[in-house]
Amino acid sequence: MVNASIITIGDELLIGQVIDTNSAYIAQELNKAGITVKRRVAVGDVPNDIQKALDEDSKHSEVILITGGLGPTSDDITKPLLCKYFNGRMIVNNDALKNVIYLFEKVFKKPVTEVNLKQAEVPDVCTVIQNKRGSAPGMWFEKDGKIFVSMPGVPNEMKGMMEEVIEKLKNKFELPVIIHKTLLTAGIGESMLAEVIKDFEAALPSHIKLAYLPNYGMVRLRLTTSGYDKTATEKEITSQFETLKMLAKEYLVTDEDEPLEKVVGKIISAKNKTMGTAESCTGGYIAHLITSHHGSSTYFKGSVVSYDDEIKKNVLNVSMQTLQTVVAVSEETVKEMLKGALNILKTDYAIAVSGIMGPDGGSTEKPVGTVWIAAGNENNHQTLKLNLRFDRMRNIQVTAITALNLLRKFILSEPFV
Amino acid sequence: MVNASIITIGDELLIGQVIDTNSAYIAQELNKAGITVKRRVAVGDVPNDIQKALDEDSKHSEVILITGGLGPTSDDITKPLLCKYFNGRMIVNNDALKNVIYLFEKVFKKPVTEVNLKQAEVPDVCTVIQNKRGSAPGMWFEKDGKIFVSMPGVPNEMKGMMEEVIEKLKNKFELPVIIHKTLLTAGIGESMLAEVIKDFEAALPSHIKLAYLPNYGMVRLRLTTSGYDKTATEKEITSQFETLKMLAKEYLVTDEDEPLEKVVGKIISAKNKTMGTAESCTGGYIAHLITSHHGSSTYFKGSVVSYDDEIKKNVLNVSMQTLQTVVAVSEETVKEMLKGALNILKTDYAIAVSGIMGPDGGSTEKPVGTVWIAAGNENNHQTLKLNLRFDRMRNIQVTAITALNLLRKFILSEPFV
Repeated sequence: MVNASIITIGDELLIGQVIDTNSAYIAQELNKAGITVKRRVAVGDVPNDIQKALDEDSKHSEVILITGGLGPTSDDITKPLLCKYFNGRMIVNNDALKNVIYLFEKVFKKPVTEVNLKQAEVPDVCTVIQNKRGSAPGMWFEKDGKIFVSMPGVPNEMKGMMEEVIEKLKNKFELPVIIHKTLLTAGIGESMLAEVIKDFEAALPSHIKLAYLPNYGMVRLRLTTSGYDKTATEKEITSQFETLKMLAKEYLVTDEDEPLEKVVGKIISAKNKTMGTAESCTGGYIAHLITSHHGSSTYFKGSVVSYDDEIKKNVLNVSMQTLQTVVAVSEETVKEMLKGALNILKTDYAIAVSGIMGPDGGSTEKPVGTVWIAAGNENNHQTLKLNLRFDRMRNIQVTAITALNLLRKFILSEPFV
Repeated sequence: MVNASIITIGDELLIGQVIDTNSAYIAQELNKAGITVKRRVAVGDVPNDIQKALDEDSKHSEVILITGGLGPTSDDITKPLLCKYFNGRMIVNNDALKNVIYLFEKVFKKPVTEVNLKQAEVPDVCTVIQNKRGSAPGMWFEKDGKIFVSMPGVPNEMKGMMEEVIEKLKNKFELPVIIHKTLLTAGIGESMLAEVIKDFEAALPSHIKLAYLPNYGMVRLRLTTSGYDKTATEKEITSQFETLKMLAKEYLVTDEDEPLEKVVGKIISAKNKTMGTAESCTGGYIAHLITSHHGSSTYFKGSVVSYDDEIKKNVLNVSMQTLQTVVAVSEETVKEMLKGALNILKTDYAIAVSGIMGPDGGSTEKPVGTVWIAAGNENNHQTLKLNLRFDRMRNIQVTAITALNLLRKFILSEPFV
């Protein structure tokens, strides 16, 4: 097995100002290539801490991928530090220089400053990984059989380099296949699910790992294994996965590693139907989840985000009486919103949600976290009331996922025509 | 200075299946309390790797906060491992037991299984941090003057415990204040900005750190310092920050650490006006950004997500002729969408966007990444064309931020009446 460590560098990672999404992306790519990520470390722009991470992680990993600290400003210290760490000296790399000049002249259309030109300098002991999306070149070092790769912390620039890095790693090592098989369940908690598959879990060979990943009231189960014989490895895990699927059948949402909104989209596409949303408290988040996936335009037509009651009334045609008597967060309102959405968006299916996401706006009768959801078509629908107790953002997320699942169940319960 | 390390445990963090948001939250809270996060480490559910992280990180940190691996299933190994690490033995904690029974009987309304009851067991060498949002108790260990706290990996449960953890840490250590001052600029790149503030940066005392945080084509500047004399520390950094603000005046968007959508919201609220959006390619993301903040209902009324051209025509009243001749991604279309949004949503301001987010759907004339944006009111507007070259998700994000900034500039350029 080839082990890897990911080291991310930047003070901003340690004060919680940015969320580290790079590590997850790099981990995914390494995994696909058959490299096991042993650990991830985030350190600040502090020479000593970076060096310690390099020392420690190269003890147990053959591959060390580093991001961050390559910018043109003085708080970016990774490049000189690596130069010293690998006993190199700085030289200008011609391809990197051409790239910097090209970027500033043709793409950014701004004058090149001296600071920018310095970005073309790299330690003479590295191989340059060209950066097609920015001015900081990537650097590939080899020392005592270990590989160290330094990439920019800007996610888009790092992603642009990973393909070349992975190719080079594949040429360097003989790698096994790592296979994950994931299924998503709904309507059962983690511990109840563990009861259901207890015997399966006990009988699972030790080289196949089972993980429970609960989120938004749904539980994902993941089987993982690896091996050098791709066919045999694939065959064994597939057989175990089929057994697991049978056991979880009653709760199974999908047997692929895909989010719920894609599952719903596939079901609607397969029927050649369309959908839309009428969103109050989720404020467009359901529409965003759906449209963040390529291909959603085949079944998703649009939304009315009726954050203000006036929009519920004027655009979705919710009656004045409903809004005044049973108020906006009620079963009657979401039913009328659903009808209005189907009508104005002219879709086959729709989802409507209205609720109080917090931190304030609740009352004794309708506390923060009260949500009503409706999902259906022009003939029929289902409604659901939630009493959430999370923070605002999580209330929005849980509402969106629950609403999508309600629509999924509604469609699957429809009689075939 | 009191240093902290954050150790997150879980295989899912190493295969990139989930993005680690816990670390950012914990880092923020520690920071506010005056504790410096030295590093963050993520390891798998592997006893050896967890132990190594505990050993290494307790060498340079006084506080080690751990999340993950406390679930009821067999892949959760943190609790027995910590029990062994601190030479304890497992005993039932009565408060935790009461909590588990209460949660299952009253909240989840499901039978308690044996597996759940086991969650009330903790090492006898720890102090329990009660979990008000789930069944796994938190654990506080002390050894050789170092503090180790283990919390669940479920973000909401961890967040529910952090307040108590921070209180206990404040009682344990004499902590300095850590102060960050952040400003956001637009319209200038990182290296040009570095030129502008070069002399300021050179003259900055070494105990005040300056960081550049570029994102979405905007650059955030952050000054950080710490000290035991709160008043003096605050005074010194404020004075430096005022100088920095003066230097960056031309590009300054906000001098608070807040996202652009909050800046726009404040400007509109201050004028007692309202806004809405008409979104095609961003699919509700702008509305989501705005409504993810508490208080947005005072100025945000709603959106029409016109993903399908039919919605542009039927709901936003974009003319058939425009859609057929100059097509959906054009200046004329976003101008008509803007007008339609102002009309149907009855808001003072609106944003309209239409573009091709990729990965396909482009043409030679209008490649992937072509976006048109309009922002304005019923009398006037500004339009902008973008040629983006990122992946789908980032294209959506950059479009949203650029559109919000266009509206901000439009409003600020309005004559006073």
